[in-house]
Amino acid sequence: MSLLRLLAAFALLIIAAPAAADTVASASSPAGTLKIDISLNGEGRIGYSISRIRQPVIGESHLGFLLSDAPQLLRNFQLVAQQKRSVDDTWEQPWGEWRKVRDHYNEIALTFEEKSKLKRRMTIVFRVFDDGVGFRYELPAQPSLSRANIVEELTQFDIVEPGTAWWAPAFESNREEYLYNRTPIDGVGIAQTPFTMRTASGLHIAIHEAALVDYSGMNVARVQGGDFKAMLTPSSSGPKVVRDTPFETPWRVILITPDGPSLYAANQLILNLNEPNKLGDVSWVRPRKYVGIWWGMHLDTQSWALGPKHGATTAYAKKMIDFAAKNGFTGLLAEGWNKGWDDDWFATGNDFSFTQAYPDFDIRAVSAYGLKKGVHLIGHHETSGNIAHYEEQLGAALDLDRELGIDTVKTGYVSDAGGIQARGDDGKIHFEWHEGQVMARHHLHVVTEAAKRHVAINPHEPIKDTGLRRTYPNWVSREGQRGMEYSAWGVPKNPPEHEANLIFTRMLGGPMDYTPGVLSLTGRGNTPILSTLAKQLALYVVLYSPIQMAADLPENYDANPGPFQFIKDVAVDWDDTRMLAGKVGDLAVIVRKQRGRPDWFLGAVGDEQERRFDVPLSFLDPGRRYRAEIYRDGDTADYRTNPRAIVIERRTVTASDRMALRIAPGGGAAVRFVAVGK
Amino acid sequence: MSLLRLLAAFALLIIAAPAAADTVASASSPAGTLKIDISLNGEGRIGYSISRIRQPVIGESHLGFLLSDAPQLLRNFQLVAQQKRSVDDTWEQPWGEWRKVRDHYNEIALTFEEKSKLKRRMTIVFRVFDDGVGFRYELPAQPSLSRANIVEELTQFDIVEPGTAWWAPAFESNREEYLYNRTPIDGVGIAQTPFTMRTASGLHIAIHEAALVDYSGMNVARVQGGDFKAMLTPSSSGPKVVRDTPFETPWRVILITPDGPSLYAANQLILNLNEPNKLGDVSWVRPRKYVGIWWGMHLDTQSWALGPKHGATTAYAKKMIDFAAKNGFTGLLAEGWNKGWDDDWFATGNDFSFTQAYPDFDIRAVSAYGLKKGVHLIGHHETSGNIAHYEEQLGAALDLDRELGIDTVKTGYVSDAGGIQARGDDGKIHFEWHEGQVMARHHLHVVTEAAKRHVAINPHEPIKDTGLRRTYPNWVSREGQRGMEYSAWGVPKNPPEHEANLIFTRMLGGPMDYTPGVLSLTGRGNTPILSTLAKQLALYVVLYSPIQMAADLPENYDANPGPFQFIKDVAVDWDDTRMLAGKVGDLAVIVRKQRGRPDWFLGAVGDEQERRFDVPLSFLDPGRRYRAEIYRDGDTADYRTNPRAIVIERRTVTASDRMALRIAPGGGAAVRFVAVGK
Repeated sequence: MSLLRLLAAFALLIIAAPAAADTVASASSPAGTLKIDISLNGEGRIGYSISRIRQPVIGESHLGFLLSDAPQLLRNFQLVAQQKRSVDDTWEQPWGEWRKVRDHYNEIALTFEEKSKLKRRMTIVFRVFDDGVGFRYELPAQPSLSRANIVEELTQFDIVEPGTAWWAPAFESNREEYLYNRTPIDGVGIAQTPFTMRTASGLHIAIHEAALVDYSGMNVARVQGGDFKAMLTPSSSGPKVVRDTPFETPWRVILITPDGPSLYAANQLILNLNEPNKLGDVSWVRPRKYVGIWWGMHLDTQSWALGPKHGATTAYAKKMIDFAAKNGFTGLLAEGWNKGWDDDWFATGNDFSFTQAYPDFDIRAVSAYGLKKGVHLIGHHETSGNIAHYEEQLGAALDLDRELGIDTVKTGYVSDAGGIQARGDDGKIHFEWHEGQVMARHHLHVVTEAAKRHVAINPHEPIKDTGLRRTYPNWVSREGQRGMEYSAWGVPKNPPEHEANLIFTRMLGGPMDYTPGVLSLTGRGNTPILSTLAKQLALYVVLYSPIQMAADLPENYDANPGPFQFIKDVAVDWDDTRMLAGKVGDLAVIVRKQRGRPDWFLGAVGDEQERRFDVPLSFLDPGRRYRAEIYRDGDTADYRTNPRAIVIERRTVTASDRMALRIAPGGGAAVRFVAVGK
Repeated sequence: MSLLRLLAAFALLIIAAPAAADTVASASSPAGTLKIDISLNGEGRIGYSISRIRQPVIGESHLGFLLSDAPQLLRNFQLVAQQKRSVDDTWEQPWGEWRKVRDHYNEIALTFEEKSKLKRRMTIVFRVFDDGVGFRYELPAQPSLSRANIVEELTQFDIVEPGTAWWAPAFESNREEYLYNRTPIDGVGIAQTPFTMRTASGLHIAIHEAALVDYSGMNVARVQGGDFKAMLTPSSSGPKVVRDTPFETPWRVILITPDGPSLYAANQLILNLNEPNKLGDVSWVRPRKYVGIWWGMHLDTQSWALGPKHGATTAYAKKMIDFAAKNGFTGLLAEGWNKGWDDDWFATGNDFSFTQAYPDFDIRAVSAYGLKKGVHLIGHHETSGNIAHYEEQLGAALDLDRELGIDTVKTGYVSDAGGIQARGDDGKIHFEWHEGQVMARHHLHVVTEAAKRHVAINPHEPIKDTGLRRTYPNWVSREGQRGMEYSAWGVPKNPPEHEANLIFTRMLGGPMDYTPGVLSLTGRGNTPILSTLAKQLALYVVLYSPIQMAADLPENYDANPGPFQFIKDVAVDWDDTRMLAGKVGDLAVIVRKQRGRPDWFLGAVGDEQERRFDVPLSFLDPGRRYRAEIYRDGDTADYRTNPRAIVIERRTVTASDRMALRIAPGGGAAVRFVAVGK
């Protein structure tokens, strides 16, 4: 290399400043709303930037990898090939918020090659939708990169505008259940995804990923100002990701929309970036409402372990099945049914059996009793994060489930040991993070093994949802947020804004098993839940999950027959979904059309302030009359002083009407629209 | 375990909220200024908090470890032993800012043991000084923890007050040379240490570490608000630290002082937390001023590599030796003396020889010529981060140095490959971070091998300085900051406030080889350096290093004999040091007393604004008269418009006088106080 080039390279090498970048390719979204420019700078670093209607949104952000056993894939690239295509497709969800999903984007795939002697190649594929961008790295098989030992993915996200961010901290502990912070964008630390921002000009931006398969989960760390970079979840084995080429990374997703409702709708983009259903006929995956032997443990009136308070007994389970059958619920979760809860289970997870019931729980009798009444037991595999132990029993456990008609299993990874205990290639136990590559593999292993037995999976303390339900529709939900149990004993309890935060953050990823519907409005020791009665009903509509628990004790439902009627009536599977009004952390008004029926349901939740909404009912079938069954906060309702004040009223409405409702502080509203005639 | 205890544990386990903590021990600083409380909460988590004169400074912050092959060391601890002691000692630096350093603290050592069956123990030792706190973990040898595979050190720092932070980003690239950010404390991302804050009430707080030996360098990541946590530098091999017990971690240091000058003085605390000199007589470590074949490369008028512009030729080196000898400099750094600079050296580092000179550089002749004139060659070992390659030659290279009278070596770790290339236990090359455990070991290996040959070490792109110069006094300095070369070609160039930032941040760690004194005030292509002439002189006093370069070309010194006189006169080794006035990022006025002489030197640097100071000269010997040789910015000086305006004047002063000076925008002031009689 010439001396001048050497000197120039030396200067480039040791200066941190950006070198001038040339745009080498561009792509716009189908309607031209979003535009992405891909650039190479003077160092041969690959960058991208995104604008929305000519307004810069993402400034030049670089791409690359840091490897543990080879020079980084970062500089000295040249563009050697590019391909464009456009897709406009519509596909159908077997279950979901929408029956039909439109997949409409322009794609540009750029292949870069190093100019230095290794000449390694990578292709970066960008898909530009009108409400967001997805991109991923594809590393082809190549002699100088047969295996990628990825120390870090050097993907940047430079948010141009200042604004407000809603985010949950990553690596705070080895858990997933947090309240969301609301800070300036430049006050974010290291955030889990999905992670949502509203900029000064009102744009709504969310960063997430799609199709997290055999890779480490991505968090984003703020470097300075609005500059973020990917920070993958660590692995015990050194590189955060180890993959043989060829492989592709998960999609990095940036949703960019003008307001809250359109941000919520943009979560379809996550599904679109996932592969189609690989399981074929999945009619055995059954959306449902269920009850549980569960809330009593959180109230401390029942126990998981054997003893005088043991919840999962044959007798109590049969009583619960009777209650479920009488009220139209088709599932019973019985936590604490199996051996292993008696010692320090959360410290080791070594004692759990996933096939042997406690002696006071006759699982065969209970499941047969349930099936006779149309109520399936929902399996429960709490592993305490000891997946080494769990994987040894997984096949036998799922075989038993299939045999007993258990068609949904809640798995669990609540670990106090400091992480997931996995068996490494060396045969020893290694502690892993919940969202590392080991767990991406484990969860998919469980889901595919379960699919072979026609069992659906709902993990607790899971890996985050990246839309894999499209590819594996038996991955039905996740208890992967700070759910209702924190309203039993949490410090602090879930605050009134919590669900209005979750809808625009965590729920962009997918369904959440939040376990709502606690009509007693009281937690452990009769402490209050920070919610009105009507809000408990609204949660069934606003918080999407194809499996929804009626979480409260039967006696509390019996004592509240009026509100309970909504829980009995509400659907769990939908043809269509629309957010009619929404402001991150403040308000969400969502309507959903019941799958295969003309009926609609509306749910609205606010925060700690009184909120009002006035929405057109134009979503209703224009040719029909509907009976609106309205469950709204009483005029004096307030979660602090009068949480039980509820008004239940009926009204006949049509598509040309509007509906104006008040949401009390800490409140909500729920409406069932029953088609009653032309 | 009882059912109630099980349930209670489950609740504790899955809630993120703090459990109530009991104070189990306390200690105060000798004058009672600082107080630390150590607590155990309901989960058995160990915490500490610090107050200053009853004002909370650090809120309850937890301690512990996440391990890769064993349950985390975090909860379920009980206090099983405690020991207190007080130390008031004064020790002497062989070279330094102060000849005598007072080490005065109260210590409390607390031994905790797990209540669960593993019963692992750790001792945490807290040393409480009046201007800061140091603490470290000591892990004794024990059956259930014979080796610690540390995934993360779970050390927290909860800064109670809001305020302003000066910080450089960690993990931004695999480098150490950055400008410092100034943001609100709650705007920090992941910071390198030292990292400095000024709170709303005016407290100055800095977080750093001391005695980084066989461990991974600590960065601090902000979680939310003012809550920070340790984030160790990763390792290619999985756990960030692997140590057999018994071992102790580096000291975690929190300096807490009422103002900028006292913060600077508190950096003695870092030295105090290091072990005493292990090298015995170190009279062979010689503080000195030196010149270099170096600035020409940054100007692009000379080259490291062979060719028509090759800088390190026999002829040019002899000319430089003549210049050095004539002006009283005793060292010559000749970069580019050795084979290996001709190819993509920064991508591999494979071609460097550390014993073979280029054919146009007769190293034996040059070194002999220099020694005759009292000028030692300063060795240069640029490794490009390929320590595998370097370590193979290290012994032979240092043997050659010793043979040739090369008593100081500048090592270098400028890597473009994406990290340090180290040979792993598997015999393969692994890429490592600059501040991981591998590099902590490597640097100390180089330093101790060099000590055997009576060679001092000054690394470029080093591991951070944690005060190990106390233990290994041949570790003389570091080119580990964004130094003068960025004023040659940096984008942006070092701004006027840069040095006033460094003094209160990076320099808390120790000496920095900043390579000041560019009297041409021009960089590459005649672009301006953002400094006045007087400031270039002031840097020799304010930026401490026992080896100081006169960085400019000889012809530029010859053209500026007036200012150059200060560079010839200024000392590099000191009996005493005091900061007379200082404000982070704005101003620093420092006086230092020449080692073994009654003379003092004053240096003052400002920022982009005009600054004035008026300080008493009471530091001078009260019985003496001094000739003050003043080099100050001319009245119209300004780094943008009139950087060369300098006034050089003499005045006779005594300890009862004051000195008031104006610092121009981008300017500085330098004063030599020569004792002239009683």
